[in-house]
Amino acid sequence: MRIANLNDRAVLLDGDRALDVERASDGRFPADPQRVYDDWEAFRAWAERADLSAAEPFDPAELGPPVPTPRQIFAIGLNYRDHAEEASLPHPEHLVVFTKFQSSLAGPHAQVPVPGDTVDYETELVIVLGRGGRDIDEADAWDHVAGLSVGQDISERTIQRRGPAAQFSLGKSYPNFAPFGPAVVSVDELADKNALTIRAELDGNGTGGPMTLQEGNTRDMIFSVPQTIAQLSEVVTLLPGDIIFTGTPAGVGMSKNLFLRPGHVLTSEIEGIGRLVNSFV
Amino acid sequence: MRIANLNDRAVLLDGDRALDVERASDGRFPADPQRVYDDWEAFRAWAERADLSAAEPFDPAELGPPVPTPRQIFAIGLNYRDHAEEASLPHPEHLVVFTKFQSSLAGPHAQVPVPGDTVDYETELVIVLGRGGRDIDEADAWDHVAGLSVGQDISERTIQRRGPAAQFSLGKSYPNFAPFGPAVVSVDELADKNALTIRAELDGNGTGGPMTLQEGNTRDMIFSVPQTIAQLSEVVTLLPGDIIFTGTPAGVGMSKNLFLRPGHVLTSEIEGIGRLVNSFV
Repeated sequence: MRIANLNDRAVLLDGDRALDVERASDGRFPADPQRVYDDWEAFRAWAERADLSAAEPFDPAELGPPVPTPRQIFAIGLNYRDHAEEASLPHPEHLVVFTKFQSSLAGPHAQVPVPGDTVDYETELVIVLGRGGRDIDEADAWDHVAGLSVGQDISERTIQRRGPAAQFSLGKSYPNFAPFGPAVVSVDELADKNALTIRAELDGNGTGGPMTLQEGNTRDMIFSVPQTIAQLSEVVTLLPGDIIFTGTPAGVGMSKNLFLRPGHVLTSEIEGIGRLVNSFV
Repeated sequence: MRIANLNDRAVLLDGDRALDVERASDGRFPADPQRVYDDWEAFRAWAERADLSAAEPFDPAELGPPVPTPRQIFAIGLNYRDHAEEASLPHPEHLVVFTKFQSSLAGPHAQVPVPGDTVDYETELVIVLGRGGRDIDEADAWDHVAGLSVGQDISERTIQRRGPAAQFSLGKSYPNFAPFGPAVVSVDELADKNALTIRAELDGNGTGGPMTLQEGNTRDMIFSVPQTIAQLSEVVTLLPGDIIFTGTPAGVGMSKNLFLRPGHVLTSEIEGIGRLVNSFV
């Protein structure tokens, strides 16, 4: 199942066609894509049996963030060993947690304004929770996951680094600094939910054609999806519809003095889930 | 005007009595206390003229967080010089920003579970936004404020300090670690909105009677209410109904090795706004 946000309405995607959830369910499920997670088990049962033959062609440029107004947005830093090393920071023993404020969320084809000279990319697997809870066992954690998505954790490194305590949350929350999508993909659609290739590519002005920026695999996360959910929920009560950006593999711009400029086009992709294509302006 | 949350319904407070907003407005404004800020100017115009003679007595123990589900919760660290000094940290040149995750919000009389041996208090002025925006001028910032409230930024210092980047957001987001209220008070109710005494007092098990913990004045904030709104909105798009915890004056527990234990009762008070009374369990 692939759940997306088309012009602020929940849809199920079937290849290049979309089925409107509210209309197809005769109003049983509301149009707001965030509300899908309020009654997740019922929604999943309905969606697994939905008749996709009524799905219609759509314009991917009209996709918004598949989960548009999560009550809580968690982001994990330094969650791949090779990225911690390129950032000259030790491998963390506990989750490194910050937030991206909700107004930074954007769709998979959003244009991203560039506010400074040190704007960087971090391609990340995003967890979407269908069921909340506290003190969730690692062994049960996948049962709390509605699906997975692709996210870009865009960062303004100058702000991120300033002050007496690192400013991850602020420096990563400019408008459209959190493009994600194209859909929330249920894990039954994935060949191996614990090992997905994750990559980013840059094209456009001055790049001389597509160049690979990041290429990794989610199996190399220091804290796996179940460990992340278990450890977060030791402290915070997780809520249905919350999302978790899970950190990025090596290859970010600050490691090679390559920052995002107007005219750049960034493609971010995870195996079996899909891709984001974001222009910088 | 004093707006509160009584059993998950928006009310206007008049001394020790409460007027239900949905009923008194014949359904023009919804019961959900968060929704008041969706149409703030219309709500304010109505509330300023509301007939409070129909208000009824209520049990203060039934008050919830006056703004229960803000889309964005900002918290500012090290915003009083005397507190930065007791924390042995320099006075910040820019806002130090983190979040308290939404599930940590609690009412003004909430019981707070104590998860460890280093649980600390920080009494804070809370800003509630009636109007959002980006790049808000300092001179216009008060026009974006719906009102002010009292907040406790409770912290688990061990988690806050661990890891390669300070874990403010995680260590301050255990359940009920953000009691606030009792109401959102419009600034016309305050003698001087720029200079309010702020204090905290501890009583209960082993304290030997009420002892003053913190005593300060909001005029000593490094970044004032208008400066905080202006600087945050240089980066993040602020949204109606967002809340901002603005930092604490000196006197926190870690400066005197005094931490919160089960049986303690903490009273947090700001002049002209009201008080929180929270028991630790």
